[in-house]
Amino acid sequence: MSFAPRHPDFAAKVRASFDAQRFMQHVGARLTEIEPGRCTVETDHDPSLTQQHGFFHAGVVATLADDAAGYAAFTLMGALDSILTVEFKVNLVAPAKGDRLVARGEVLRSGRTLSTCRADVFVVRDGEEHLCAASQATLMRLVGGFGGEGGPAGNSGHGEG
Amino acid sequence: MSFAPRHPDFAAKVRASFDAQRFMQHVGARLTEIEPGRCTVETDHDPSLTQQHGFFHAGVVATLADDAAGYAAFTLMGALDSILTVEFKVNLVAPAKGDRLVARGEVLRSGRTLSTCRADVFVVRDGEEHLCAASQATLMRLVGGFGGEGGPAGNSGHGEG
Amino acid sequence: MSFAPRHPDFAAKVRASFDAQRFMQHVGARLTEIEPGRCTVETDHDPSLTQQHGFFHAGVVATLADDAAGYAAFTLMGALDSILTVEFKVNLVAPAKGDRLVARGEVLRSGRTLSTCRADVFVVRDGEEHLCAASQATLMRLVGGFGGEGGPAGNSGHGEG
Amino acid sequence: MSFAPRHPDFAAKVRASFDAQRFMQHVGARLTEIEPGRCTVETDHDPSLTQQHGFFHAGVVATLADDAAGYAAFTLMGALDSILTVEFKVNLVAPAKGDRLVARGEVLRSGRTLSTCRADVFVVRDGEEHLCAASQATLMRLVGGFGGEGGPAGNSGHGEG
Repeated sequence: MSFAPRHPDFAAKVRASFDAQRFMQHVGARLTEIEPGRCTVETDHDPSLTQQHGFFHAGVVATLADDAAGYAAFTLMGALDSILTVEFKVNLVAPAKGDRLVARGEVLRSGRTLSTCRADVFVVRDGEEHLCAASQATLMRLVGGFGGEGGPAGNSGHGEG
Repeated sequence: MSFAPRHPDFAAKVRASFDAQRFMQHVGARLTEIEPGRCTVETDHDPSLTQQHGFFHAGVVATLADDAAGYAAFTLMGALDSILTVEFKVNLVAPAKGDRLVARGEVLRSGRTLSTCRADVFVVRDGEEHLCAASQATLMRLVGGFGGEGGPAGNSGHGEG
Repeated sequence: MSFAPRHPDFAAKVRASFDAQRFMQHVGARLTEIEPGRCTVETDHDPSLTQQHGFFHAGVVATLADDAAGYAAFTLMGALDSILTVEFKVNLVAPAKGDRLVARGEVLRSGRTLSTCRADVFVVRDGEEHLCAASQATLMRLVGGFGGEGGPAGNSGHGEG
Repeated sequence: MSFAPRHPDFAAKVRASFDAQRFMQHVGARLTEIEPGRCTVETDHDPSLTQQHGFFHAGVVATLADDAAGYAAFTLMGALDSILTVEFKVNLVAPAKGDRLVARGEVLRSGRTLSTCRADVFVVRDGEEHLCAASQATLMRLVGGFGGEGGPAGNSGHGEG
């Protein structure tokens, strides 16, 4: 699907919000693609991100899926809008065993209030991407910012106030 | 619901698996309750765990929900069994604004192969618990360990091999 | 949890909406409980509702779960509000083998725009209720009706316009 | 993705299972595509399938999504295998307003025991397909049939025994 952004500086807005999420730094995540209705978030393997077999922990997989979906939706929102995650669901289809995790989010539908997105998460192993998780999410647009503060907010990861 | 564990040392088994998950240490999580069919995981607020408003990031909420559900299921498995998360879904019902996050998982049904669990996540604010997320998860039992290694494995957070 | 309805005739409003859903009659469903924040929907076994083993089809289980959750949320809405289902997730935990299906919905959180609900579905066999499905749903409140028509609408089962 | 079926007569097996589901006849559903890893289920608009606005009820949308996903997975199973739905999640992205409902299921991953599928549901209006729902499902393979009966079973729509 192709989408037209409402805000010309959508990429800068997404980047500012992402940079304000301390947890993204904590898991080493970076934004590697920001297009209207699409967003990619990646992180490299690090022992701090693993479960008991040394693979990426499901929590890291879910975190990246949530952010990729949320920022995909955020690319289509207005200059003063904030966004929050209403819910998301992750099917873990294969072990996240590899050197890098790549979460690609895309908007299925961008409504007035709610957006529905999908994010697929791939693990890179021996130079090849393997699907390790598939997710669906609902995001909510908050006009004029979360809690009335007005400023840029971004994928805030929680229910409405 | 009340459940009888198959393995007398279920608590030690859960604890060993949890301790082997490096990501749990990375998010400061600790196991605070291990009963047959129930498990509680908590973490304290820290700037590294936040989104752009300073609240707990949805990824942290999801991580704790996944672990509480997974270890609740794991309490009912056998001495040599491993476990992995098949899927989970999180509804974020309120901002995770507070000092501490408490995820309480419980088993709805423990089948031969699959377990279904719920985990509610509360945020502690001014000394009171507030529901911030509700989740449902499917977990899979792997007889004799994940990938054939036989030993204790625990909530491995990924699809079957 | 206990909730206070915004509309004194919430039960009549729920009933009118339910009665307007032709599909409810098609699956023989009836409303058997309407309390603030809670709703129960039931149907009796009939060959037309079965899958290949003669048990209730998952589609019937999901339909009742959706309606019980949606009308639980609808009990807390205003006189002119409509409601629609944003998403729902069903874990099928045991075969729906029995004489009657009972879906009990309850509100976890009733927000300004969104409500989060759970519905558990039980199958009655030999006079006893057995849990066969657990679900979580997000519902959306539409002020003044769906599509601007203003009148009572109820759980409409689709995305926003 | 492309998949190789394990059973040469997978289409006949899917068809036999579908025909044994009385609820499919009750909602007027028909199988219109059966390929390895893919399946399409459709139904025409009928007043008996509607909610209060005359659109397809969410329960019908969910039913078709479940069947399309389940039979997509079933195309890849063996001659004696049965299948059951473990869980599914549906995001309702737009009103199901139209003449016909088309659910297209596809396999994301077909594991030894579990399969993960997606199904998109479209409503046909003025001759054009519009996405009205997106779903993800987990299906389970039962070797040698459900409950030990051995014969062909198909998407049985309930948890394991």
